[in-house]
Amino acid sequence: MAHPVLAITIGDPAGIGPEIALKALAQVRHRLDEREFALVLVGDPGTLAAAGRILDQAPPPVIGEDRISTLVGTAILPTPAPDTPTRWGETSATGGEQAYQAVAIATRLAQEGRIAAIVTAPLNKEALHLAGHDYAGHTEMLASLTGVSGSVMMLAHGTFRVSHVTTHCALEEVPARVTADRIGHVVDLTLATLRKMGVAQPRIAIAALNPHAGEGGIFGRHDIDVTAPLVARYVAKGARVVGPVPGDTVFVKLRAGDYDAVVAMYHDQGHIPVKLLGFSVDAETGRWNALSGVNITLGLPVIRTSVDHGTAFDIAGRGIADATSLVEAIDYALQLAAAPADAGNGE
Amino acid sequence: MAHPVLAITIGDPAGIGPEIALKALAQVRHRLDEREFALVLVGDPGTLAAAGRILDQAPPPVIGEDRISTLVGTAILPTPAPDTPTRWGETSATGGEQAYQAVAIATRLAQEGRIAAIVTAPLNKEALHLAGHDYAGHTEMLASLTGVSGSVMMLAHGTFRVSHVTTHCALEEVPARVTADRIGHVVDLTLATLRKMGVAQPRIAIAALNPHAGEGGIFGRHDIDVTAPLVARYVAKGARVVGPVPGDTVFVKLRAGDYDAVVAMYHDQGHIPVKLLGFSVDAETGRWNALSGVNITLGLPVIRTSVDHGTAFDIAGRGIADATSLVEAIDYALQLAAAPADAGNGE
Repeated sequence: MAHPVLAITIGDPAGIGPEIALKALAQVRHRLDEREFALVLVGDPGTLAAAGRILDQAPPPVIGEDRISTLVGTAILPTPAPDTPTRWGETSATGGEQAYQAVAIATRLAQEGRIAAIVTAPLNKEALHLAGHDYAGHTEMLASLTGVSGSVMMLAHGTFRVSHVTTHCALEEVPARVTADRIGHVVDLTLATLRKMGVAQPRIAIAALNPHAGEGGIFGRHDIDVTAPLVARYVAKGARVVGPVPGDTVFVKLRAGDYDAVVAMYHDQGHIPVKLLGFSVDAETGRWNALSGVNITLGLPVIRTSVDHGTAFDIAGRGIADATSLVEAIDYALQLAAAPADAGNGE
Repeated sequence: MAHPVLAITIGDPAGIGPEIALKALAQVRHRLDEREFALVLVGDPGTLAAAGRILDQAPPPVIGEDRISTLVGTAILPTPAPDTPTRWGETSATGGEQAYQAVAIATRLAQEGRIAAIVTAPLNKEALHLAGHDYAGHTEMLASLTGVSGSVMMLAHGTFRVSHVTTHCALEEVPARVTADRIGHVVDLTLATLRKMGVAQPRIAIAALNPHAGEGGIFGRHDIDVTAPLVARYVAKGARVVGPVPGDTVFVKLRAGDYDAVVAMYHDQGHIPVKLLGFSVDAETGRWNALSGVNITLGLPVIRTSVDHGTAFDIAGRGIADATSLVEAIDYALQLAAAPADAGNGE
């Protein structure tokens, strides 16, 4: 294709997805006009029309699948019409089904090579389950739809990038899951993804599992027995991998530019620093007033990036949601889509 | 006493403790002159003289214990003379013994009511062990010296305060250690300490152990079965305690001012956000160029605050270490010392 076509799945129609999709579209309009890329919104046209009325912004035209790969500018690719209407902020099976259908359609188009990447707006897990789709989230759904296992979640706030060895499991399950094989898999995908992002000689730090990287074994031996030998093997191969670096200093060094990414052992270890840097909340209203950060799934046969926040049902339909994260997700998707095709998505 | 007398233990003489003690002294000199408080440096006068030559700053006069409680301005209270000289950046039993002696002396003076609080500069754990003092760190040493158990580590960066349910143990030991009793103990000490800090109606959030606070039990039941009922009991008593709040958003809300403190379940959960906000590192040199943050031990019969960083042997003796954290530790100690005496240190 002449320029890449990206799909934004608008997520749960009752959340902020439809409105941030339109807001993001407005923010990148000049780039669409310049044919840097094209953007198709996958979702219910009626929902997008409603969001457009709130924002006083005309939604793009509706087109069929046959015109996707040659799209110029922007358009809506409709999901199957919803059985019942959805209402802003209300969890429903219809909302979950709509969110699922958009991702299923976009994934198929990406696998067929008709779009370059998928950018996902947030879905609601409960709604997804009500619709009979028992996935823990987008990542698991995409793994299932594409038939892969071993995908990896990377969160990024600018060049502050963190890959996760484990994510959605109880803390007590973490020590058994952070095997040398899994850590190595995450390091490999992270190195490959960084190269696709244009980092020629990626530098990675592996965060320690235990405080003080185990303090010589007093606080656990995982970092000494598992991570340190793994790092030595990467170093012997000439890779720029360091670790185990204690969790409480590794992210300070990442922010300073000492590394291109950190490999975190578990959900909170990686999510706390990324969200602390990217999110802010208004103490008066309790509302999130900045949401910066991108969720990138490594190890899929398709390129997928996502916002790093939820459906925000409490403010949906009011036109006040922030599209920063979605625009960042578009930029990361473009960066990955521009990389040589022979590398796959990080493999 | 007319004004409070604070003791700074200068920590390992081979580290940055002596020089940051003198730097901090210079930074608070005007406040000493105004008799807001007095400051005694506990350590080897020869080491402080050497640090003074590097900084081109005359060390304070040496005095005996009998003059401590009536001190005006500043002075050095000597530790027993070292057997052998120490050298900047070199780990030694002598350094460990000096660090131990300073803390032992200051603790005794605090228990005798001759000083109002102890502020500790960093020690080196290996040196401490070489000297035969097998403590994991200051906190454990202070607990032993004062004969208490159940002390709690609070880290603070300005009003960003985090108490820890567990700290120095392997991650795999955390789930068994975060019992309702222990969490309650930490909440109680944190509420009491916040009141001593002048917060009339303290608001505390308890961080979830598991991602998404367990996501309805899919990612573990601790937050649902242990923390939620505990929070309900506090709420029923009229305390402003919320939780479990997912770890990846609770610190964003703490920074926004939604709470006065967060109770973190384990070392990295609490340390990552505090250090990310307080520390910065120079990517060129790899050197820490800002170290802000205070370590406060709750539950001791004496007031103890500390810097939130290590001995920095790599830059010791060069006069470039940053005293920000030590000055902040002095301010927190003064705040706690000014609180009504009947409350104890957070109990």
